[in-house]
Amino acid sequence: MAKNDMSVKEELDQYYEELKKQNLGPLWYDLGHMVTKEPVHDVEPYLWKWKTIREYVLKAGKLLEPGKDAERRVVYLQNPSLLKRGLVGYGTHTLYAGIQLLLPGESAPSHHHSQSAIRFVIEGDGAYTAVNGEKTYMERGDMILTPAWTWHEHKHEGTEPMFWLDGLDVGLVKTMAASFFEPYEEETYPMEAPENYSTKQFSMGAFKKLNESKEPGYPSPIFGYKFDRVKYLLDEMTEADNDPYDGYAIEYINPTTGGSADSRIGTMMQKLKSGQQTKAHRHVHSAIFHVLEGSGYTVINGEKFEWEKGDFFILPPWSLHEHVNTGESDVFLFSFNDKPVMEKLDLEYSEVYEDNDGHQIVEKVFVPEN
Amino acid sequence: MAKNDMSVKEELDQYYEELKKQNLGPLWYDLGHMVTKEPVHDVEPYLWKWKTIREYVLKAGKLLEPGKDAERRVVYLQNPSLLKRGLVGYGTHTLYAGIQLLLPGESAPSHHHSQSAIRFVIEGDGAYTAVNGEKTYMERGDMILTPAWTWHEHKHEGTEPMFWLDGLDVGLVKTMAASFFEPYEEETYPMEAPENYSTKQFSMGAFKKLNESKEPGYPSPIFGYKFDRVKYLLDEMTEADNDPYDGYAIEYINPTTGGSADSRIGTMMQKLKSGQQTKAHRHVHSAIFHVLEGSGYTVINGEKFEWEKGDFFILPPWSLHEHVNTGESDVFLFSFNDKPVMEKLDLEYSEVYEDNDGHQIVEKVFVPEN
Amino acid sequence: MAKNDMSVKEELDQYYEELKKQNLGPLWYDLGHMVTKEPVHDVEPYLWKWKTIREYVLKAGKLLEPGKDAERRVVYLQNPSLLKRGLVGYGTHTLYAGIQLLLPGESAPSHHHSQSAIRFVIEGDGAYTAVNGEKTYMERGDMILTPAWTWHEHKHEGTEPMFWLDGLDVGLVKTMAASFFEPYEEETYPMEAPENYSTKQFSMGAFKKLNESKEPGYPSPIFGYKFDRVKYLLDEMTEADNDPYDGYAIEYINPTTGGSADSRIGTMMQKLKSGQQTKAHRHVHSAIFHVLEGSGYTVINGEKFEWEKGDFFILPPWSLHEHVNTGESDVFLFSFNDKPVMEKLDLEYSEVYEDNDGHQIVEKVFVPEN
Amino acid sequence: MAKNDMSVKEELDQYYEELKKQNLGPLWYDLGHMVTKEPVHDVEPYLWKWKTIREYVLKAGKLLEPGKDAERRVVYLQNPSLLKRGLVGYGTHTLYAGIQLLLPGESAPSHHHSQSAIRFVIEGDGAYTAVNGEKTYMERGDMILTPAWTWHEHKHEGTEPMFWLDGLDVGLVKTMAASFFEPYEEETYPMEAPENYSTKQFSMGAFKKLNESKEPGYPSPIFGYKFDRVKYLLDEMTEADNDPYDGYAIEYINPTTGGSADSRIGTMMQKLKSGQQTKAHRHVHSAIFHVLEGSGYTVINGEKFEWEKGDFFILPPWSLHEHVNTGESDVFLFSFNDKPVMEKLDLEYSEVYEDNDGHQIVEKVFVPEN
Repeated sequence: MAKNDMSVKEELDQYYEELKKQNLGPLWYDLGHMVTKEPVHDVEPYLWKWKTIREYVLKAGKLLEPGKDAERRVVYLQNPSLLKRGLVGYGTHTLYAGIQLLLPGESAPSHHHSQSAIRFVIEGDGAYTAVNGEKTYMERGDMILTPAWTWHEHKHEGTEPMFWLDGLDVGLVKTMAASFFEPYEEETYPMEAPENYSTKQFSMGAFKKLNESKEPGYPSPIFGYKFDRVKYLLDEMTEADNDPYDGYAIEYINPTTGGSADSRIGTMMQKLKSGQQTKAHRHVHSAIFHVLEGSGYTVINGEKFEWEKGDFFILPPWSLHEHVNTGESDVFLFSFNDKPVMEKLDLEYSEVYEDNDGHQIVEKVFVPEN
Repeated sequence: MAKNDMSVKEELDQYYEELKKQNLGPLWYDLGHMVTKEPVHDVEPYLWKWKTIREYVLKAGKLLEPGKDAERRVVYLQNPSLLKRGLVGYGTHTLYAGIQLLLPGESAPSHHHSQSAIRFVIEGDGAYTAVNGEKTYMERGDMILTPAWTWHEHKHEGTEPMFWLDGLDVGLVKTMAASFFEPYEEETYPMEAPENYSTKQFSMGAFKKLNESKEPGYPSPIFGYKFDRVKYLLDEMTEADNDPYDGYAIEYINPTTGGSADSRIGTMMQKLKSGQQTKAHRHVHSAIFHVLEGSGYTVINGEKFEWEKGDFFILPPWSLHEHVNTGESDVFLFSFNDKPVMEKLDLEYSEVYEDNDGHQIVEKVFVPEN
Repeated sequence: MAKNDMSVKEELDQYYEELKKQNLGPLWYDLGHMVTKEPVHDVEPYLWKWKTIREYVLKAGKLLEPGKDAERRVVYLQNPSLLKRGLVGYGTHTLYAGIQLLLPGESAPSHHHSQSAIRFVIEGDGAYTAVNGEKTYMERGDMILTPAWTWHEHKHEGTEPMFWLDGLDVGLVKTMAASFFEPYEEETYPMEAPENYSTKQFSMGAFKKLNESKEPGYPSPIFGYKFDRVKYLLDEMTEADNDPYDGYAIEYINPTTGGSADSRIGTMMQKLKSGQQTKAHRHVHSAIFHVLEGSGYTVINGEKFEWEKGDFFILPPWSLHEHVNTGESDVFLFSFNDKPVMEKLDLEYSEVYEDNDGHQIVEKVFVPEN
Repeated sequence: MAKNDMSVKEELDQYYEELKKQNLGPLWYDLGHMVTKEPVHDVEPYLWKWKTIREYVLKAGKLLEPGKDAERRVVYLQNPSLLKRGLVGYGTHTLYAGIQLLLPGESAPSHHHSQSAIRFVIEGDGAYTAVNGEKTYMERGDMILTPAWTWHEHKHEGTEPMFWLDGLDVGLVKTMAASFFEPYEEETYPMEAPENYSTKQFSMGAFKKLNESKEPGYPSPIFGYKFDRVKYLLDEMTEADNDPYDGYAIEYINPTTGGSADSRIGTMMQKLKSGQQTKAHRHVHSAIFHVLEGSGYTVINGEKFEWEKGDFFILPPWSLHEHVNTGESDVFLFSFNDKPVMEKLDLEYSEVYEDNDGHQIVEKVFVPEN
């Protein structure tokens, strides 16, 4: 480049302008935005109080009738950091969380879609989720799978309102331009299998029925994952099982593969003993948390999010986080995440925080906007 | 062939003689023995009474001290059909069954070998089997793995004599010329893992600990398979699970692969309700049966073998068989087999008996030689 | 809902307003946008002429020195449909295509990143791509892998300018918030393996070296995929191999898995004989095409895109498309796509166009903006 | 044991006698024969001269007509060490080798069986082997699979006698009591696929046709493995590929699995350069060797077996062996083995000989019995 700097600049500017007209771009200019040294994203942490959510969901119960006014009566979390940019608001860039209410006697009609979904029961019992015609009865703390493309519906045969979390990978499927949806031709898919069949089948990991296939496959042969078993397993854990970053933690699996129960949405239950505090780490995958039991706080990128039973909060991708149980009894934190997606795509990566004995300095305390 | 028949025969005879001298053979002559239309073998069915076995094993307990007079104090089944041909006598061409006695306070020193082994507890409790330093306590009806090449030892900390079945693939490994054996340099392999650890780890098929690997692998992460769980699963079965040839049956599995618990020795527990009778079928794999509970009989190739609690009997390869529970209570039949070997080698094949509504004509009743 | 319609509407409007303040949303209102009956996206088809691209890339060659003015001297495709919404412009929502120029004697320094990349040689020879220290020399029509996280660099030892396509999953990795990048600490990664080693190793699919591992694994043991072999295989194909929607087509594979050569970016070469016309279909995955040889056109969603040697065009997700060879000689179309991602996530789905004997009505002819 | 030794001995002897009557055995007495420290077997090494074999096979050609006098016109190797014990004589305990002659115009009718078989062409061309209706033409040095249970037949359309090796796992299948055999209902199975189809399909390991399945499966999609490709690959090898124990060696694989071409019979071609000498090692698997080209000798357990083009020799299990090329030109040794069986059963194990710089002392020279 022999010319003087001024003329070079001018020449370049003119070049860039022409390039743009041709719908071409100079990589050397944009590389830094395309291929960043570390993940760059818009997702910020946020927290919702159960009290507020519950109130608004109940109000919807009075205003709307599912099947008539709404396919499903659900209030969903709108992470304001996603809203700001004019995007449809979800929990994270990939994950959606809604809170569904079903009143005694009500039902939600059968449909299926390319999104994967999990349910987590917050309050009540007596309702069932039917997946491809197999009913699974739902009790508080249970996790129920309705995997992508399975026909699913809900019906409440109990006497009190039922609340549950719907976790879907709406953001992922939208970004991938891969959404398909179809209502079932009738209100209800034919019921064929015995009730809770899948839960009973594989109740014992060390045995199989003579004619039972154990070939790896999707979806998981289990649809209902009972909380009493999760609790039993967590309570049986010893200090050796206590993970420094996640405490006592179990993942829900597909017993035929050993992998995540749903093939795209990861699900985890963590237990923290009274006073327990984890160390900080971060990972590419994002998550949405629900507090099943107990109270405490989570520090995310230096900001403190205080929570109690029923609350929800967002863990953005590549964000430092640590949990603390400030109560007298055990904390049970349920969460769902996009880890299986990141792992399938070989994009998962994690890092521990080493300064300050693994604990972040709290620089800010989150206050719900209201 | 223009010559007269006589000279052709002479010429051929001479040719065969010369061929033999050259250590060559005419296939057209021997093909029928080499490649048979159906399996041909020497293994015949047989049955041993528990009363007899127990008496002789106990006598050995008086005559011999394990560790001093014997590496292990075991009396093994000698199938007379295998003995006749001057072969070392085993249960079948591939499988061996021994009955081991351990008296209170005794131990059997640590060793390992290329043979796979399973144990099945017949009487007593309070002893443990340690596999690579992990103790599994043994109770009646439990199945314990000591997979090929794992260091294993036994010790009795209880107060009554303990009897258990040792099932090994001695015949297979001998035929394959692949036997290796080594005693451990000391009496005992270092004990490291918590007791019964493997049994507890994978107690629930639908969940895993956060840091627990579920990668398919051998050996099974479980060494002890508890009878109470087997019984629970069998008792939960519905009529839909009742197999016409095997009744209510479960197989012991390696939860990381979904395949057989031991990679070469298959293990199965069958339950027959009072009065239940299965239909006849046959398969390439052979098996050795032990009657855990109940009484009845098995018809094998038209011969009736009557059995009661504790008895052992042989099912040869490719032999028609059906079972009958003639007692008032449930029958529990434990068996081990070479099915995983036949499946790995793609040699397994089975056939159901269709005549006479699936039931053989009993032509003979077996009477133990004594 | 017993109240009159007016008051219901008012009540609902107020409810929605309050909900919004709480960062909550009514699913019954937004479900149609979240879970669509069919894929909804912003990606539109587009076409760039090679003549234009080549001219601007060569101009960059005069204006910039790689390593000094630019990490890589690359001009990339900016799909205007993606630009319109203020997004960084890529080829499709997941895929990026750049055209790189390396002049004789130049080199591009070693770096690695979490994005996967493939190269496809457009003009010239004598340059190599080195992947983790193994050099693969590049000739026209060759496809070269630089899988995610491998150290890679380029050097030109030849005498004429070299142009090649860089295909990366920039859009996917950005959306997943999973971009990591690192320059190598020195200009060049140590060269260790013999040249073109991987290409030679697995040249024959039916054999392996005694000590060569064939365990399924990533990345592919092959980095360089030679065009002469691709052409040989396409020329050997018979009418039975002629796919109605894709013509004569081969995919580049990882021989240890049988799957896509790169684990996230699919790569395909299609051959169309003179006069050949395919039928229309559509699929969830998107692609970017490059015309290696020949001339013709592609109809995408009713719009005709005419192309000749060297041109590039975009196939958006879920878009009907069919190709026609209007020239005298064979057409060779190279393309890369996000099919492996859609398949891993179980989001791939396709549909054939059945009207009008499988051919779309051309409603519009694309004219490049300039 | 408080009694005097004499009475103990008497008591034990009586005990053993009673035990025997009950068809029970004392393990402490027999353990050493059942579970040996190292493999114990009857297989001894042996060598046959091609000149002799060829002469006797040709004589059979004069005496017998296949299809009329014989299903197949084959002379097989009778290892005398196996004959001595009254067993049907095979090559090793698991493997059988026959030499088949087909004269111009002759054919061998279609049949199938549970034994696996491979063919290796010794002399001639113009014949084909058809597997499930797909013809593969055979040339000198080619290896052809006729996997277990596939219908196969041979026909000679050429002008000179053809000789080939038949390698089967007759011993294994007999020992496992798993032999099944069935002639095809007609002389010939319907011919459907194009000729040599499978050989062409997978000719290139790095690519697949768009609609070609690469799912792991049995049998191999390739039936014919051409010698010219084997030779090309061996000739391309560098010193880095030279294995100290096996020289330049390739294995024939199933490209969908990366494993052995046949699922039970392993196949290997080794090349030794003029003057090359390997070091000694031993392994559980046994093998039968055929000298395709060159001359030299193999030392097996201290005995020297001199060979030249066309000869066959036996490598028993767990036997030290090393090869030497004493000629001027390259040696090509083809062998087939039971390594896949030992590996599937997890019974394979190997050991290198470390004394004397890896070379055995020759204590004996083998002289054929004649």
